[in-house]
Amino acid sequence: MHRKSKKAIVLLSGGLDSVTTLAVAQAENYDCYTLSFDYGQRHRAELTAAAKISAEKGALQHKVVNINLADFGGSALTDESIAVPNVEHEGIPITYVPARNTVFLSLALAWAEVLKINRIFIGVNAVDYSGYPDCRPAFIEAFETMANLATKAAIEGNAMKIETPLIRKTKAQIIQMGLELGVDYHQTVSCYQADKNGYACGVCDSCRLRRQGFFDAGIDDQTLYQHR
Amino acid sequence: MHRKSKKAIVLLSGGLDSVTTLAVAQAENYDCYTLSFDYGQRHRAELTAAAKISAEKGALQHKVVNINLADFGGSALTDESIAVPNVEHEGIPITYVPARNTVFLSLALAWAEVLKINRIFIGVNAVDYSGYPDCRPAFIEAFETMANLATKAAIEGNAMKIETPLIRKTKAQIIQMGLELGVDYHQTVSCYQADKNGYACGVCDSCRLRRQGFFDAGIDDQTLYQHR
Repeated sequence: MHRKSKKAIVLLSGGLDSVTTLAVAQAENYDCYTLSFDYGQRHRAELTAAAKISAEKGALQHKVVNINLADFGGSALTDESIAVPNVEHEGIPITYVPARNTVFLSLALAWAEVLKINRIFIGVNAVDYSGYPDCRPAFIEAFETMANLATKAAIEGNAMKIETPLIRKTKAQIIQMGLELGVDYHQTVSCYQADKNGYACGVCDSCRLRRQGFFDAGIDDQTLYQHR
Repeated sequence: MHRKSKKAIVLLSGGLDSVTTLAVAQAENYDCYTLSFDYGQRHRAELTAAAKISAEKGALQHKVVNINLADFGGSALTDESIAVPNVEHEGIPITYVPARNTVFLSLALAWAEVLKINRIFIGVNAVDYSGYPDCRPAFIEAFETMANLATKAAIEGNAMKIETPLIRKTKAQIIQMGLELGVDYHQTVSCYQADKNGYACGVCDSCRLRRQGFFDAGIDDQTLYQHR
């Protein structure tokens, strides 16, 4: 395969947003390393999706880092004793994982420095999102500032840029963009409590936002649901 | 044991600086959770030291998080194929672990949020240090700014403070302060290639800075060396 001169790390959960982000990075002519995290999440089917998509899309390497955030507790996504809610809520939901994007971006930064790469793509979204503080533009900007003081690479002039191509788009816009770029959303797993085959519950926050996105985009919902 | 109302997380490698930092936090009346990292480092004796010191000093809990930075490579501290140098150097040394303090502080931030704690102590030092970028005040300040945009806790008004009591002290000053606070430096392991009993090589950067610190402080070197 012909390789490009531009390289990036893409945080790839295997969900709708991160898979679209990978497609955007590749469309912008980046050769991509994909990075996933086994952090004790309930919805482990997303890791299977991430591996499969990385292979199909020709990622340079797909790395899964083990970091047991479940050991800290405090989130319905990692703590089996806290139920994933099925109803809408106000404020920051119980599915919020403490400091998750900070931890994920920090580990991406470490890998980027070793690979001598100065682009990290992350599919955070501040519009149709679940109210997580670490999805906002101000957080990303502060992380980038910190990253450029943290590393040997930055001191030597190789400044890091955190790319967030989805941050100001609606879920419908993300889906439309992804379809134009050839994303197969059947393969993606967004559900917080997907079964081991990746079939979605249809009722959690993540399912609700995703289904609304397909509806708003006027596109058939490509999600595989458990009850169908 | 009587417990205090103030609580903090202390990053505890088991070395001279972090053990002194724990003593400072305790002297400032914090009940402390201690956090260590098994990150594939050569000098694993420091983890044994950290556990022993946490127990003796009455830490509320000592947690060791597994995070395999060795998997990324790029440092003599985690990569067996890169030798730990015995000579002085210019610039940032090969023992620098990419983005290490960023990763460690991010995981401390996650635990702090779960524990509802808003103080993290880290024994970074910008004077007698090895030239690591992530030991500088500007980095710590940028991390704190980022942390206060990253978390649910911060949004709800529980701002995070990163405490760096050693940052502007010389190694000699750190040792003098620690001795006044009752630190037993025999127990601490600073060497980058300590043997399994915690005995130091005496020639690596970390040993060199430590020995100079004892010398400058006019105090007998309390380090256990392999050749003695």
